[in-house]
Amino acid sequence: MPGIDKLPIEDALEDSPQTRSLLGVFEEDAAAISSYSQQLYQAMQRIYDAQNELSAATHLTSRLLKEYDNQRFPLGGDDEVMSATLQQFSKMIDEISSCHAILSTQLADAMMFPITQFKERDLKEILTLKEVFQIASSDHDLAMNRYSRLSKRRDVEKNGQGSVEDGVQQESSFFKLGSENLTAHWEEFLSNIGTSVQK
Amino acid sequence: MPGIDKLPIEDALEDSPQTRSLLGVFEEDAAAISSYSQQLYQAMQRIYDAQNELSAATHLTSRLLKEYDNQRFPLGGDDEVMSATLQQFSKMIDEISSCHAILSTQLADAMMFPITQFKERDLKEILTLKEVFQIASSDHDLAMNRYSRLSKRRDVEKNGQGSVEDGVQQESSFFKLGSENLTAHWEEFLSNIGTSVQK
Repeated sequence: MPGIDKLPIEDALEDSPQTRSLLGVFEEDAAAISSYSQQLYQAMQRIYDAQNELSAATHLTSRLLKEYDNQRFPLGGDDEVMSATLQQFSKMIDEISSCHAILSTQLADAMMFPITQFKERDLKEILTLKEVFQIASSDHDLAMNRYSRLSKRRDVEKNGQGSVEDGVQQESSFFKLGSENLTAHWEEFLSNIGTSVQK
Repeated sequence: MPGIDKLPIEDALEDSPQTRSLLGVFEEDAAAISSYSQQLYQAMQRIYDAQNELSAATHLTSRLLKEYDNQRFPLGGDDEVMSATLQQFSKMIDEISSCHAILSTQLADAMMFPITQFKERDLKEILTLKEVFQIASSDHDLAMNRYSRLSKRRDVEKNGQGSVEDGVQQESSFFKLGSENLTAHWEEFLSNIGTSVQK
């Protein structure tokens, strides 16, 4: 990443326009990664679904070929060549069907599981924290507003300070997540792909 | 086939109850083969569709992975490791996608084409001829009925004979088809499967 790789927690307390702007960049980045990951997830889900369907369809075909001997054909009951050929054919389709089933399981473990985890756990957490931060941020703005307008200083100071502390706490956790969790998860995801590609 | 393998054309002229009963057995057999083939056709169509979908889905995934470099990630623009890994990953998915596309073409040529031909050409012809025969047969029965009831022998003989000849012609072509075409087509279909299985 070019220069910036984390949001310093200590900046949250100060909450300067620069910090807010930098936060915006992190939010934009999270949104872009989220959208790209979602597309990738959908494409991978299509692969997985198609692989499952292929597994089911070959299994059905093999079963139908096996059932040939149980069909009531008034004229073809004793056709041994037909029967033997279809049995052999069905055995081959069965092997192909097994391969497809294994492939489905491998795709579930090695492709769908990591990307689903990344999407449902990491990206969702970031987006949820973003929302939480925005709520805390408007609470904070509201409190600051009240604080500057009201005349009874002592009372206001008491309430306002509570909200400010709340806001700062939310900001901190968002900043912390941006700098630590995401980088770690991306690196894990990357290293997983890296390992798979090298195999 | 047990004993009976064709309907003698000369029997059609006589049109005895035995011949009619034997014809019924052939019709039943044709219906059973038609129903079984239809199930097999649908299962194979499912395989083919799934294979096509797999080909399309892997192609899309590869394209998305390639597009990673063109995404606007405010913070991740210069991440060379990520970029290189995804390019390599996309290249592999691309190769898999090509394999799937080739498999699709092979399935179209070696599986869908023969069974579609068998279903649309041979089975459809038999079922159409069965209908044509049934129409001709009721015309024939009607004419025979008129022939035996009417008193003006000369007129009736003229019209009736025409219908009888028509009926006999239709029967002949159905019988001929049953004995020659179908056997030949089944043998061709079988030998195709036989050759595929031995490969």
